[in-house]
Amino acid sequence: MSIAEHFPIYNKLTKAEQEMLDQYAVLRKVPQGTLVHGDGSSCIGLLILRSGQFRAYMTSDEGKEITLYRLFDQDICLFSASCIMTSIQFDIMIMAEKDTEFWAIPPYIFKKLSENNVHVANYTNQLMSSRFTEVMWLVEQIMWKSFDKRLAAFLLEECNLEGTDKLQITHEKIAAHLGSAREVVTRMLKHFQTEGMVLLTRGTITIIDRDKLEDLSE
Amino acid sequence: MSIAEHFPIYNKLTKAEQEMLDQYAVLRKVPQGTLVHGDGSSCIGLLILRSGQFRAYMTSDEGKEITLYRLFDQDICLFSASCIMTSIQFDIMIMAEKDTEFWAIPPYIFKKLSENNVHVANYTNQLMSSRFTEVMWLVEQIMWKSFDKRLAAFLLEECNLEGTDKLQITHEKIAAHLGSAREVVTRMLKHFQTEGMVLLTRGTITIIDRDKLEDLSE
Repeated sequence: MSIAEHFPIYNKLTKAEQEMLDQYAVLRKVPQGTLVHGDGSSCIGLLILRSGQFRAYMTSDEGKEITLYRLFDQDICLFSASCIMTSIQFDIMIMAEKDTEFWAIPPYIFKKLSENNVHVANYTNQLMSSRFTEVMWLVEQIMWKSFDKRLAAFLLEECNLEGTDKLQITHEKIAAHLGSAREVVTRMLKHFQTEGMVLLTRGTITIIDRDKLEDLSE
Repeated sequence: MSIAEHFPIYNKLTKAEQEMLDQYAVLRKVPQGTLVHGDGSSCIGLLILRSGQFRAYMTSDEGKEITLYRLFDQDICLFSASCIMTSIQFDIMIMAEKDTEFWAIPPYIFKKLSENNVHVANYTNQLMSSRFTEVMWLVEQIMWKSFDKRLAAFLLEECNLEGTDKLQITHEKIAAHLGSAREVVTRMLKHFQTEGMVLLTRGTITIIDRDKLEDLSE
């Protein structure tokens, strides 16, 4: 198993660049809960996920959070290499939501590749465009979509990700994903329960009427 | 006067690329109110502003608006060339807020340059990072900053842009910039007037206590 199979434009690199990548890319594993980017010091580089899940989020000065996007198998984490992109002037945090395995291309190696290889530079561009698209989608959601629709969509997405209709997640955590407050989440979930869409029990939210929830989320 | 003086990385192009740019870049003028991008059909290309002002904004299905960022002299308008960037999957509108003069590099020329010249590709990256930074700033504002602070900051920015303390702008228009409703803007402006920060007269908002407004906006 080598980086050659996982770096999508490996065959667009020169022989020397391929050798450099073979030599410096490392396969790493981090346990669930690891902050891989955003503690202010580290710059881990370009990451290619092999298994697991990352969450990219933003925090306010008061410690409030909102989820920007998530990364899964084969996804590439660009902002963990933001130290080499001087025009990126915002901070995001990236945390492993599950035990996660990934290839890491060190920042100076990725920088060298971008500066010299037009395919890598254009690929970086593509990655940034994809993340930009996700953040613009979020802006749309926050601006024009009411909270009940966002919460319904979030619950459905979580069920898909976890492959279950019984979610083990606190109201506090949902609030952090949606950039809201715990009380607001609790109030809306109770409303969903009254409407027969979910069942709330200690520490668990069970989806009981998926169709109704889907109708609401659209 | 030629594109050579205005395209920031002109000297990083090959002789052939420079000649191509000389031949195809055109100097254009559009009157205030022109929609240069986002009517669904046109893809005008990479634009370099020489004078005037562009506003980039988003609209909801119901026609609500929010300003994403603005572009001034020397700024480069990247998303007007979004047709050549397949990973950009969101729509923004770009409108001339003043009579505006700009160099336009046609999309297929810009594409050719990006695909072949690593400096152009990296420059595109830089541009995208800058716009991304502006949008992330906006997300922060919307998520964590209260409306009074955002309105105060907007009034001060407008005054700086227009070089006056008397703003000729409707409450409707302010609402469109901030992604809010006219009534919300009117209510807050009346509150600002009660607090002695502005004076509201027919069609005009006059800043009378800039310091207080600045304190609020921070």
